[in-house]
Amino acid sequence: MKWIHYTAPGAAASSYGVLEDDRVRAVNGSPFGGHDFTGAVHRLADVRIEVPLLPRTFYAAGLNYVRHIKEYAERSGQTLAIPEKADIGYRAVNALVPHEAAIVIPSNAKQIEYEGELVVVIGKKARHLSEADALSCVLGYTIGNDVSERLWQASDRTFWRAKNSDTFKPMGPWIETDFDLDAARTTVRLNGEVKTQFRTGEMLFGIATFISAMTRHLTLYPGDVIWMGTDGKSPHLKAGDVVEVEISGLGCLRNPFVAEEA
Amino acid sequence: MKWIHYTAPGAAASSYGVLEDDRVRAVNGSPFGGHDFTGAVHRLADVRIEVPLLPRTFYAAGLNYVRHIKEYAERSGQTLAIPEKADIGYRAVNALVPHEAAIVIPSNAKQIEYEGELVVVIGKKARHLSEADALSCVLGYTIGNDVSERLWQASDRTFWRAKNSDTFKPMGPWIETDFDLDAARTTVRLNGEVKTQFRTGEMLFGIATFISAMTRHLTLYPGDVIWMGTDGKSPHLKAGDVVEVEISGLGCLRNPFVAEEA
Repeated sequence: MKWIHYTAPGAAASSYGVLEDDRVRAVNGSPFGGHDFTGAVHRLADVRIEVPLLPRTFYAAGLNYVRHIKEYAERSGQTLAIPEKADIGYRAVNALVPHEAAIVIPSNAKQIEYEGELVVVIGKKARHLSEADALSCVLGYTIGNDVSERLWQASDRTFWRAKNSDTFKPMGPWIETDFDLDAARTTVRLNGEVKTQFRTGEMLFGIATFISAMTRHLTLYPGDVIWMGTDGKSPHLKAGDVVEVEISGLGCLRNPFVAEEA
Repeated sequence: MKWIHYTAPGAAASSYGVLEDDRVRAVNGSPFGGHDFTGAVHRLADVRIEVPLLPRTFYAAGLNYVRHIKEYAERSGQTLAIPEKADIGYRAVNALVPHEAAIVIPSNAKQIEYEGELVVVIGKKARHLSEADALSCVLGYTIGNDVSERLWQASDRTFWRAKNSDTFKPMGPWIETDFDLDAARTTVRLNGEVKTQFRTGEMLFGIATFISAMTRHLTLYPGDVIWMGTDGKSPHLKAGDVVEVEISGLGCLRNPFVAEEA
């Protein structure tokens, strides 16, 4: 089942619907509570797709694929150890934009890169979950592009502008509740050409490991998201580029890059 | 003006009010939009004080008072440079608890400390603010206690459990819109005894500097908060301790520490 957050033509506010083929069936409610179908149906092509949700807490695994860690360390000249345990990090809500929205490259940015990531959407309040039970709190999955400025990532004390400048966190296009992680591949295309491809599930620490570790000390809430990290490397991006992150079964998140206006 | 978020006796949900002496005047609405007085009045002693707001994004300055940085570096044996610019960090919403709520010391924690902090509450959407205009987006101020587990802070790759374990972020008791930072002192008492005291405004980077730097790259939204860091050092805390963080004009945030149940 595909949950889509959208604005219908002429509508004053966004709402949720269920996507079936190229039709959006409107609902009252949301994926996080009760809902019923209103009877209205829109063509997918006619609606504006919104960010699937504004997370209550925006978690990110960061370094979670071995090849990416090694390549990032080599290119940046930094010493980067392979993480020994599942220490979760954070990103920021201000940076979220939906499918097809422009990513603005700040005028003072030098090295912009993509990171195609699987996003886990939490559907149930959870604390103290074993690894065996961890996935019981998951509502579904979507796609994220963890856009990064590599010089700021290396120089700043935090990731605030390197990872969380406005528009640096495209997420979408929608939430899929049925997903086969073992079969999934992440493919990133730059201007239509495949540049990065990896098995989505080949993580250093899997989803259940993260959720179990996290819920030892914190409560997950409906509407939290966990971005699971990326593999491989990205070319440096420039205004005019278009990046597509596709994950088997989850769709394709497509965003153009533009230059910041003076 | 004091905005208080509270639950009235027998009420099913929390709401906002305006605190005048020991009376809470109930309103419809919130500090972040229109509001009007309902006519209902409660005694402060009769209501349950809630977290003043669940921030949309929870920012934290981290290292922002020189003495704290030096003392933390000495005690931890870490090399800690004085930050050269205002790089903002993050904390997490799951950890927030109100005035008087218990802070739960995890059974595997070893070195729990307090950090009494000034909290800035954003009231208006803001981007590209100069330092001169920066405070125009501020609604008011409250108090935070950035409870930290120092061994996890040193050992983990992120601050997830060191700073964001459930209950580690008491905030409150309410939001004060009129505040004289220059005259303010932060006082932290442990079991009634003053342990830490500093001039609240003696920050490495001031509020306007942070807001101006942040809004070069990100949009601040109503309901964002910025915790401004702490000075001095804390003793190690244990179950049964009570910590009060008082900031002149903002009130006193009081929380007992308890042991995690097995």
